[in-house]
Amino acid sequence: MVYLTRQEHFNAAHKLFNPAWTKEQNEAVFGVCANENWHGHNYDLYVTIKGKPDPDTGFLYDVKKLSQLIRKYVIEPLDHKNLNLDVPFMKDKMCSTENLATAIWHQLIDHLPGGVLLHCIKLYETPRIYVEYFGEE
Amino acid sequence: MVYLTRQEHFNAAHKLFNPAWTKEQNEAVFGVCANENWHGHNYDLYVTIKGKPDPDTGFLYDVKKLSQLIRKYVIEPLDHKNLNLDVPFMKDKMCSTENLATAIWHQLIDHLPGGVLLHCIKLYETPRIYVEYFGEE
Amino acid sequence: MVYLTRQEHFNAAHKLFNPAWTKEQNEAVFGVCANENWHGHNYDLYVTIKGKPDPDTGFLYDVKKLSQLIRKYVIEPLDHKNLNLDVPFMKDKMCSTENLATAIWHQLIDHLPGGVLLHCIKLYETPRIYVEYFGEE
Amino acid sequence: MVYLTRQEHFNAAHKLFNPAWTKEQNEAVFGVCANENWHGHNYDLYVTIKGKPDPDTGFLYDVKKLSQLIRKYVIEPLDHKNLNLDVPFMKDKMCSTENLATAIWHQLIDHLPGGVLLHCIKLYETPRIYVEYFGEE
Amino acid sequence: MVYLTRQEHFNAAHKLFNPAWTKEQNEAVFGVCANENWHGHNYDLYVTIKGKPDPDTGFLYDVKKLSQLIRKYVIEPLDHKNLNLDVPFMKDKMCSTENLATAIWHQLIDHLPGGVLLHCIKLYETPRIYVEYFGEE
Amino acid sequence: MVYLTRQEHFNAAHKLFNPAWTKEQNEAVFGVCANENWHGHNYDLYVTIKGKPDPDTGFLYDVKKLSQLIRKYVIEPLDHKNLNLDVPFMKDKMCSTENLATAIWHQLIDHLPGGVLLHCIKLYETPRIYVEYFGEE
Repeated sequence: MVYLTRQEHFNAAHKLFNPAWTKEQNEAVFGVCANENWHGHNYDLYVTIKGKPDPDTGFLYDVKKLSQLIRKYVIEPLDHKNLNLDVPFMKDKMCSTENLATAIWHQLIDHLPGGVLLHCIKLYETPRIYVEYFGEE
Repeated sequence: MVYLTRQEHFNAAHKLFNPAWTKEQNEAVFGVCANENWHGHNYDLYVTIKGKPDPDTGFLYDVKKLSQLIRKYVIEPLDHKNLNLDVPFMKDKMCSTENLATAIWHQLIDHLPGGVLLHCIKLYETPRIYVEYFGEE
Repeated sequence: MVYLTRQEHFNAAHKLFNPAWTKEQNEAVFGVCANENWHGHNYDLYVTIKGKPDPDTGFLYDVKKLSQLIRKYVIEPLDHKNLNLDVPFMKDKMCSTENLATAIWHQLIDHLPGGVLLHCIKLYETPRIYVEYFGEE
Repeated sequence: MVYLTRQEHFNAAHKLFNPAWTKEQNEAVFGVCANENWHGHNYDLYVTIKGKPDPDTGFLYDVKKLSQLIRKYVIEPLDHKNLNLDVPFMKDKMCSTENLATAIWHQLIDHLPGGVLLHCIKLYETPRIYVEYFGEE
Repeated sequence: MVYLTRQEHFNAAHKLFNPAWTKEQNEAVFGVCANENWHGHNYDLYVTIKGKPDPDTGFLYDVKKLSQLIRKYVIEPLDHKNLNLDVPFMKDKMCSTENLATAIWHQLIDHLPGGVLLHCIKLYETPRIYVEYFGEE
Repeated sequence: MVYLTRQEHFNAAHKLFNPAWTKEQNEAVFGVCANENWHGHNYDLYVTIKGKPDPDTGFLYDVKKLSQLIRKYVIEPLDHKNLNLDVPFMKDKMCSTENLATAIWHQLIDHLPGGVLLHCIKLYETPRIYVEYFGEE
C-alpha cells in the first residue's frame, strides 16, 4: 500500500458572507473577508490517492492521468472563477476553505479507477492556512 | 551601500479588461483573466531599499518601520480588496501586475526617510510569475 | 470532520546540555549544539485542529482566532527569547525540539473551544528537521 | 510518542520501461519517461521515525545519527547514480517513485536502534509529485 | 521600464566529462558528476524580459505567450532528455549549468517580439546552486 | 560572463544592543531584539561569484570548491555560535544583518582564485527579511 500525491493550483475570487445575516453581522464575523467587491487567492491543491502499485508499471496510478482527472473535475470549474457565482458545486454553500476542500473530494471520488482509493484533499488558501479532508463524517 | 528587502503579502480580486474594447476583444486578449465575475491571487511583495547603515544601530533602516510603511501605504489599500473597484491609486489603470508594481513604487517613494532610497518593487502574481520595477522610465 | 492548520513562527536562542553531566559529556553528546554561549533558530510552527465546520460560517474555527490563541499561549512566551532561561513552561526540561513540540501541545490543549480538537503540533527547527506530536502517550 | 523527520536529497538518472514490452508499448505507457537515453531528477527524501524521547537528552534519536544512517544506506547508493543500472537494491524492479520509496524503507528498517520505529518514507520526484510508504502491506 | 519573469522547469539526465581527458582525469575533476551511467536533475528555469508595458493591455508581454516561446524553444528540446546525447544545441559543449544557461539565452534571443528585450536566464541545477546569464561577453 | 550562486546556511544566537546606550535606550530602539538573554536565527546565505567559464570544464568555478571556501571562512566561524561573543570578525560591531553581510563579504574576498570575482552576498535573517551587499562603498 503506497500513497501518491499530485499538486495542482488554481486562482479564484470569493467572499465570505451568509445571506441570512445583515451586512453588519457578516462584517463582524468575517471581517475583511466579507468585502462585497470580493477578494481572491492562489489556491494550492494536493490530492492523495492510495493503493497497490501495478507490477507491470510500478505505478499506483499514472500521475499524468491523475492530473488530467483533477484538471477536468476540479481545476477547470474553479480556475479564474468566482467561487460564489460561477461554480455549480459550491452553489448555496459558504465559500470557506473547509467547504471547498470537502466539495473537491466529492468531485473526485467517483472518477478514480478500481483499486485506487482517494485518501486526502489538502487545500492551501494561503501559504500559512490549509485544510485537509479525508472523507470522514 | 547595502540593500535591505522586506516581504509582505496581500490577497485581492481583479480582472483584466479594457473598457474601450468589446467583451469578445477582451476575451480574445485576456482569456480566462477577463472573467467578468473576477478571479484573484495571493500577491507576494518584496520591497528593496538601499543606503548606508547607521553606525549606532547597524541598520540601514529599522525593518519594523519599513514594514509599517508598506502596510500603511500598500497593504491596507490592497489587501482583501478588488483591485479594479476598491483601490484609488489603480483607478483608470489596467490591472496588470506590471501596472500594479509600478503603482506600488509611487505609493512608497515619498515616504522613506532621508538617506534611504527605494531600489526595487518585486511583485509575484503567482509563484511562477513576477514583475520588478526599479523606477526606470 | 475536517482538519485546519495554521502556520506561525518564532525566533529563539537555546542550547542543548544536561546539567547532570560534565561539559565534556555534553559536548560528546550534543556537539556544537552544546555551545555555552548559545545558538538559535527560526522555528516554524504548524498547529492542526480538527472537528466539524459550523454550517453558518463554513468554519471549523475562525483561523484569526486560532492565530490569536497560538500567539498568546505560544508565540509571545517563545519569540525572541532564550528557551533555556526565559520560558517558564520549558523550565527543567531538555530544550530539544521533541520536548518543545510536546510543551506547545500542553500550552494549547486547554484553550480551544468546545467541538474543536487539537490534532497535531508540527515544529521545524530547521527547514530539514521537524518534529510532530499528536498527544499520544 | 513523538515523530521526528529528517530531509535528505539525491540526484539520479532513470527511465521507465518494462523489458517484457516492446519499445512502442513502453512509449505508449510511459511517454517521455521512456526515453532510452535516460532523464533524471533531484529527489527530496523525508524519513520519519517515531518513539519516546530519552529523558537524558530530550531526543527520540540524535538527528545527526539519523542523517548518517540515511546517507550510508540510501544516499550513497543512489546519489549521482543511474537508478536502473547502478543500484543493487533496485535491480529487476520498475524504477517508479512508488517502488523506490518502498525500497528505501527496506534499506533502513533493519538499521534503526531499539525503541526507534520507522514511520514513513516520503519521496518527492518533482516538487509537485511525491509518494509516501508507511510499511503497510 | 519593467521586468517580467516566468518560471518553467524540465527534468534531464547528463554527465560531466571532457572527451579529451582520460576517465581518471574526468573523475578527478568532476567526481560523482562524471558517472558514466549518467545522473540527472529537476532544473528550474527563470526567464526575465524587460521593456515598457503596452497601454492597452498593461502587459510588457502576454505571459502565456512568453511561456509558449520558452516551451517551444527550450523546454521541448530539453525536458526528459539526455543533455549530452539528445540536444542539438548542446552538442560538443561541456554540459555545465553555466553552458546550459548561456545556450538557453541563445535559443530565445531571436524569438522575442520588437520592444521586448531578453534580460536574464536564471537556471537552478539544484535548489542550492544556480547560474545567471545576462548576455554579457 | 556568467554568475554562479551557492546557498549555505548557519544557525546562530545574537542580540541587538549598543553598549554606549542604556538598557532602556536599547529596548526603545531594538525592542525584543535587545533581549539580554539572546535570541537566534537560521540564516540562509547566498554567495554569488562572476567570471568566464573555463572551456575545459564549462565551470566558472567548481561549486564544490566554492562551498568549501564558504564553509571554511564563513560557516565554521558562525554556525552554532553567538554572533556577539564568539566571532572574531564581528567583534565591536553591531550585530545587524547589514553588518553581518558586509563582514561575510570581507571574509571571502581575498580567497577566490584569479578570474573569479565576488559579486554579491545575500543573507536572509528570516524568510521575509534579507540584506544584499555588492562591495559598493
